[in-house]
This record gives sequence, C-alpha cells and structure tokens, in this order.
Amino acid sequence: MNTEISSTQNKRIKNLLQLQEKSRNRKKEGKFVVEGLRETGLALKGGFDLLEVYFCPEFFSENEFKSIPNFENSHAEIIEISSEVYQKLAYRQSTEGLIAVFASKENGLKTLNFSNKNPLILVAEAPEKPGNIGAILRTADAANVDAVFIANPKTDLYNPNIIRSSVGCVFTNTIATGTTAEIIDFLQQKNISIYAAALQASEIYTKIDFTQASAIVVGTEATGLNQEWRDAAKQNIIIPMSGAIDSMNVSVAAGILIFEAKRQRSFL
Amino acid sequence: MNTEISSTQNKRIKNLLQLQEKSRNRKKEGKFVVEGLRETGLALKGGFDLLEVYFCPEFFSENEFKSIPNFENSHAEIIEISSEVYQKLAYRQSTEGLIAVFASKENGLKTLNFSNKNPLILVAEAPEKPGNIGAILRTADAANVDAVFIANPKTDLYNPNIIRSSVGCVFTNTIATGTTAEIIDFLQQKNISIYAAALQASEIYTKIDFTQASAIVVGTEATGLNQEWRDAAKQNIIIPMSGAIDSMNVSVAAGILIFEAKRQRSFL
Repeated sequence: MNTEISSTQNKRIKNLLQLQEKSRNRKKEGKFVVEGLRETGLALKGGFDLLEVYFCPEFFSENEFKSIPNFENSHAEIIEISSEVYQKLAYRQSTEGLIAVFASKENGLKTLNFSNKNPLILVAEAPEKPGNIGAILRTADAANVDAVFIANPKTDLYNPNIIRSSVGCVFTNTIATGTTAEIIDFLQQKNISIYAAALQASEIYTKIDFTQASAIVVGTEATGLNQEWRDAAKQNIIIPMSGAIDSMNVSVAAGILIFEAKRQRSFL
Repeated sequence: MNTEISSTQNKRIKNLLQLQEKSRNRKKEGKFVVEGLRETGLALKGGFDLLEVYFCPEFFSENEFKSIPNFENSHAEIIEISSEVYQKLAYRQSTEGLIAVFASKENGLKTLNFSNKNPLILVAEAPEKPGNIGAILRTADAANVDAVFIANPKTDLYNPNIIRSSVGCVFTNTIATGTTAEIIDFLQQKNISIYAAALQASEIYTKIDFTQASAIVVGTEATGLNQEWRDAAKQNIIIPMSGAIDSMNVSVAAGILIFEAKRQRSFL
C-alpha cells in the first residue's frame, strides 16, 4: 500500500518545494528533485541513488515504473499524490505525473580516474546561466568527453533549470567541481595540457594538437578567462572572429572547440 | 527644446510599451524598440532608420548622443523622459537611460545579392527560443557569413528578447526570412549547395567541401529538418554524437557546422 498525499500543505510536499527552489536546502539535505520519466531514467542510468518517487495516477500509471531500467533495484519509497499536489510541484503544464528525489553526488576531483590514456576534458569557469550550462552539458554528452569540470560554480548542479536545459545530461556526464586552483592542480598532476580560450596572445584553435590529453577551458562571456588560467595554459587559444562584435555565446564557443578536438580524434 | 514626458500614462509611452510587447504592433507600425547605447549604435551601423530617442537625464547625458556614430545624420526626434517613465520602459534594472525607436526593414529575399562568389549562408528552420536565435545570430556575426535566412519564423526579429540575446547582432547580420519553399528556390537559383543537418542517410559534416557556395541548414531540436529540406539538399549532414542522448542545442550545432566551414575557408 502506497502512502497517499492529497494536501499541498503536507510537510513532505513543502519540503519538496524547498528542495526545488533552494540550493541551500539541496546542499543541507544532500538531495535533489527530478521531474519526468526520461530524466528519472537518466539519473538512474548515471548511478544516482533514487530515494522517493511521487506519482499522480491521473497522468502516470504505476505500471510505468517497470519501464524504467534499474527502477526495481532502487528500493525507493513510492508515494501517490493528488492532481492538486502534482500541479503544485510540477513545472508549468507538465503532465508526466512523475517527480523523483535522488541523493546528490559529491562531484569531487579526488576520486576521478580516466580509462582513456589521452582524455578530453571540458572546463567551464564560473558559468552563470543555467541555459548555457545545460547546453554545455549536452555538448559534452554528445562528444562523450571524459569529464566536465566546473570551476567556481555559481549554482549547484541540481538546480531544476540546469536539469531541464541539459535534458538530463547533468546525469550522463562525469562532472567535477572545484576552485580554479584545485582544477589546475589536478590537470597538471595528470599531465593534461590546458588550452584556455582567451583573446590575448592566442593561437588559432585549429592549430592545436588536441589528440593528446587535453583540457579545453572556456570562461564567462563578460570577463573572459582570468590570469590564473592563462598562466597555467600550455597555449591560449582563440576562435577567429570577423564580425562587428567580438563575442560568442559561451556554450557555442565550447561546442566549436570540443568538436574540433573530436574531428582531430576522428570522432572516436 | 526637447519634448518632455513625465507621465507613464502618456499616449506615446503606452504606444512604446505596446511596441515592445506585441509583434502585431511592431508589424502594423513598421517600428521596433531598442534599449541601450551599444544596441542603438549597432542598429545605426546596420543602416536602420532611427525615428525617435527617449533619454532619461538621470542616467544619460544628452552629450552622449554625439558619441554614437551616425547619430547626427538621423534627424531623430529627441524626447526627455522622467525616471519613472524610464523604469516603466526599461528592462529590469537597466540604467543606461536610452530607448530608441527604429523603422523595421523588410528582410525580403528579393533584393539580396552577394559580393562573395562562394557565399556561406546559415539557414535556421523555424527556430523558437529567442535565446537560441540570439546565439545563432552572434555566431553568424562572428563567422561573418554572407547571410542568415530564417525559414518560417515563429516570431519577428525585433522581439526585445532576440535583440538582447543577440547583443545587437540582429542588426549587424544580413538577414532574410521566407517560407521553406521560397528559400530553397532562392538558393537553387543562385546555385548555392544546400547541406541539411539531419539524422537519416547523412554524411559526417567534416567530409563536406564547404569552400564552394554553401548553405548550412539547421532545424528545430524537437522535430529536426523536414522532408522538404532533406529532398532539396545536395547532401544531408550529421555531427557524430556518441553520448547517452542524441541531441544538441540547435545554436551549438549551428556553431560547430559554420566554424567547420570557416576552418576549411582558412577563416577568410
């Protein structure tokens, strides 16, 4: 027999809303909220620990749980919610009828190891807009990079807007966060060459040999990459621009650089 | 002596708000609203006809008008507005103090001619999100493509969110709109090869010779490119993806394809 919740004032529901809205609550409880069947499946696939699922029988049949790979092994608590409660929790006009709670991962650098002898890593320094982070994670997934590092994140990765705009790629990538110094230290210890997207004293990106162990670093659009990265770089790189405006969306720039590396690696 | 407006109920101010909010009004009046010094300068640079400028002396000194190239030749009407009126018109916490009204351009295909013997054109089929359109226009500007075509636009180009997210590149690019059939017809008449980003029966994009006259066509993320484009294409092309999810942000995909063409053209 499932627990049933029909009141939006229920303590668990209020707690869920806080988890969705506040990074602080996610950090404190070590949990985050996922909406939708596909995203829930990707989080399970990514090895996240499923704690609770809330379903609204008006939109989601309990039988559908069986269609989610690995769901059976999760031992998650299943809670039935009323339509009113679901509408309170769900994004806009979502009618998938499924809300899941997962345990966060640490995303630390320490435990990272690469099976690839010449790993390809994408580093984003302090990205701000969830839409850009989502697009970067989609590109990283498509390119199957060995890891994505986020230096000095401005928000936690389990922000609902990042989950949504990454269409679940926040779960399929190997992601680590840290300070700029920590990430530079990690890359240097592993002998991974740093290529920092910059404007000053830079080489055209297509001239670089990305077939060796490489970390491609992109900065925020407003300020570009800081001196710390430019000093640590084996080479600063630039995408030649010839328009009226000298700037590009950061997720587009990351895509161009990463796929030049993929081209050089024959897309393997 | 400038006209002065201090009431948010003023008829002209109400009309400006309508121009900002409603595509229908922009079309009917053939005008659109631009906010900020940089964007206003880019619209003037792009040859748009400046009709009116509204400035708030608290944030913008009348002397600054002289710093805008081509402003003197515009014969625009200058209107002073109160801080209250400015806050009503301006986006969020903007403190630039400048709002401009320009005449729209036609953006038709008919008058288009290319000085480049082998033009490079970016085509976006029915893009929806202003953020994606803005990012695409920034990429097109950076790559200095010969034109951007928008097939079946879902919104007019003078949507304030497109102007903002393109950081003014909506004014610096040569842009034309039309139906899919009109654009295909135009490209075929000019002997410009069509390369449609698709999943079916596609060649890896790096295998294509983009040094000849080329139009790179990207579709909406949800549905991909329709049969009409796939049939008209000299070759359907694909960006190889090897992640958990078979999709990429449309503006990132456009950036990867356009800059592969630029690489082949030695960034000239």
